Amino acid sequence: MISNDELARLDQQDPLRQYRSEFLLAKDSCYLDGNSLGPVSQRVVQKLQDVVTAQWQPDLIASWNKHGWIDLPLRIGDQLAAILGAESGQIACCDSTSINLFKAISAALSLSSGKSKVLTTTDNFPTDRYMIEGLSKLMDERCELVSVDEDDILNSLSDDVAVLVLTQVNFRTGQLLDMKAITQAAQEYGIRVVWDLAHSAGIVPIALDDCNVDFAVGCSYKFLNGGPGAPAFIYAAKRHLESLEQPLSGWLGHRRPFDFSPNYDASSGIAQFLCGTPSVISMSAVEAALTLYEEISVEQLREKSLSLMEVFLAQFHQSGAAEKLTLVGPRDLTQRGSQLAFEYEHAYGLCQALIKRGVVGDFRAPNILRFGFSPLYLSFQDIGFAVDQLVESLRAGEATQAINNQRSVVT
Amino acid sequence: MISNDELARLDQQDPLRQYRSEFLLAKDSCYLDGNSLGPVSQRVVQKLQDVVTAQWQPDLIASWNKHGWIDLPLRIGDQLAAILGAESGQIACCDSTSINLFKAISAALSLSSGKSKVLTTTDNFPTDRYMIEGLSKLMDERCELVSVDEDDILNSLSDDVAVLVLTQVNFRTGQLLDMKAITQAAQEYGIRVVWDLAHSAGIVPIALDDCNVDFAVGCSYKFLNGGPGAPAFIYAAKRHLESLEQPLSGWLGHRRPFDFSPNYDASSGIAQFLCGTPSVISMSAVEAALTLYEEISVEQLREKSLSLMEVFLAQFHQSGAAEKLTLVGPRDLTQRGSQLAFEYEHAYGLCQALIKRGVVGDFRAPNILRFGFSPLYLSFQDIGFAVDQLVESLRAGEATQAINNQRSVVT
Repeated sequence: MISNDELARLDQQDPLRQYRSEFLLAKDSCYLDGNSLGPVSQRVVQKLQDVVTAQWQPDLIASWNKHGWIDLPLRIGDQLAAILGAESGQIACCDSTSINLFKAISAALSLSSGKSKVLTTTDNFPTDRYMIEGLSKLMDERCELVSVDEDDILNSLSDDVAVLVLTQVNFRTGQLLDMKAITQAAQEYGIRVVWDLAHSAGIVPIALDDCNVDFAVGCSYKFLNGGPGAPAFIYAAKRHLESLEQPLSGWLGHRRPFDFSPNYDASSGIAQFLCGTPSVISMSAVEAALTLYEEISVEQLREKSLSLMEVFLAQFHQSGAAEKLTLVGPRDLTQRGSQLAFEYEHAYGLCQALIKRGVVGDFRAPNILRFGFSPLYLSFQDIGFAVDQLVESLRAGEATQAINNQRSVVT
Repeated sequence: MISNDELARLDQQDPLRQYRSEFLLAKDSCYLDGNSLGPVSQRVVQKLQDVVTAQWQPDLIASWNKHGWIDLPLRIGDQLAAILGAESGQIACCDSTSINLFKAISAALSLSSGKSKVLTTTDNFPTDRYMIEGLSKLMDERCELVSVDEDDILNSLSDDVAVLVLTQVNFRTGQLLDMKAITQAAQEYGIRVVWDLAHSAGIVPIALDDCNVDFAVGCSYKFLNGGPGAPAFIYAAKRHLESLEQPLSGWLGHRRPFDFSPNYDASSGIAQFLCGTPSVISMSAVEAALTLYEEISVEQLREKSLSLMEVFLAQFHQSGAAEKLTLVGPRDLTQRGSQLAFEYEHAYGLCQALIKRGVVGDFRAPNILRFGFSPLYLSFQDIGFAVDQLVESLRAGEATQAINNQRSVVT
């Protein structure tokens, strides 16, 4: 076992240790569910107060110009571009990840000259699959969902596939896909690639432009800490912006929305992916949360995230209690997002028992216990505490005692 | 002219006068743009603080159950149902009005057995038209936009029309359409009717069930005061819930979202219109704003709204300055929403000059000055003040002096 002194030493050497105080977290707990819902930070609290009492309240309708509300979607888009390895002008913050999937897949199909197959994985996050299904209902034979196992992606590429839709980090297993290699392999068949970054944005180094990605979507309420159900984002490569079409053509995607023209004329830029009026309050929280990335690089976060997971696994395996749980996904941490997932017969009960002990992970049906590692606010001593609680709970057999059938929520 | 004493007497007799103190508005101004963006209320400020510091902060992911976040869309839907004359279980709060239009029109088409014509007005709010255009791109000849003038709606109904999409109150002219008569006339041809309530929800008495409306959508940031860009809503009549299909089939519309099943199986209720994860912070503000309607009826608001507009017009016409401006839309106030609109050559300049004088209306291209009347926080003396400023500004010729070319924002 790594000693408490050694964990304390790791914390002392941690260049990110100062950011813990940014987050309003209880002292006696270890939050390993930031991959589902990131915690609130002081800058988000402050911004929410400002947007209500220093913007909306005194300036009312004039705030749209005076406080730049109307530019929030593209302003946050550019913040995200810097985080996701993209030139500015290619990302918009808007709507939900599901809605943005619909736009991105439609847009990708609009560039695919008659091909109809949309390839995805059987184990992709359900909404990615459901949005393809929904699009198929409208487009009939011009949009066909084809499912393969994650291991068969590369073997399933062919000239008659129009679009490949993948989530970079599997929400259940934590498996990290190779964005660059898969994108390149797919594009050799003329396939457009849509990446869902829900579980990788802001925690795994991503280079959308360098990987020549066609489209991407993602959410801002997990590792990006933008707030519960915060607005999502969409990326479209600059090379596609003049030629694509997307069908959720709301008034803010118009080239000149304030002309109130009766016919739609799409904006030439990324703004063509905007639809309705932006959700200002929620979006302001996202803007504030992302300012953290002006001080910290994703590479720094990745380095600490890998160390946190490494310490967790080392401590757990040395405890002698690890044999009951089976790690799901790659053992090589560099092939994972910032998440460990374990199969365990009584995963639900164990998850509940750990919450009572102050260690918050989550359960995914039918038998998976997930732990997310967010290096912004987790210390190595937190990890030591979490493993201690896990081991003690397993030794005490608490998992089989918990029968609370509470619903588990959010991805 | 109505004397200041008489205006003060009207205010003293106003049963809604106490609600002015709910809203955080500057004392020396008259806000006539609540039909574009409603102001902030004390209950909304309080709720936003609670959701961040008493829910998200301490309870993190557990808030989805503990604080009922997961039920927000349908819980707010039921608040709206009471306001809009609908039985519970038929409205969901979610996404934007534009996105909900897409769902509603798709759903209406899914019930229309092969008919393809979607009839709307040339002067409908642009996003209503744009969303039909977007749907047409996906559905090809199975969705065809047909435009007519507002006066020709009844003459344009026929057996080959599938869906009629109308906004109850015209965003430019303020004209109020007869929901019951038009719905009935359309349904005699087997047409499904989608009503956009953006400019009528919470201010015009509406009886969705009694009018046998098929679908409706609307926004919560105008007369409902839910906050800038707040989540919108969608209504679907109970009789359609088992047979319709809507294509924005995100994970929260699934019958059992937490099964994370690979294939979509739509919820049987109004929840099938949910798509992505709800925007909790913005939605909580809406929930708080709507609690005002537990104390006040829409009929009360309508009565005062008509009186406010009547006083405005009477004062203005008696001032001798009214001839320069032409009232747009019906002179009969009962055929208007809660909005007066005037055509004026220098409408933009006049709007800017009035803002400087503390009277906030808005400008709509090319030459319309709009004033919205929200009886929750406007007094009769406010109206007297507004007319005084309007008259003085016109007499001073301020409209032609203003050349500030600021963009005008939001519907």
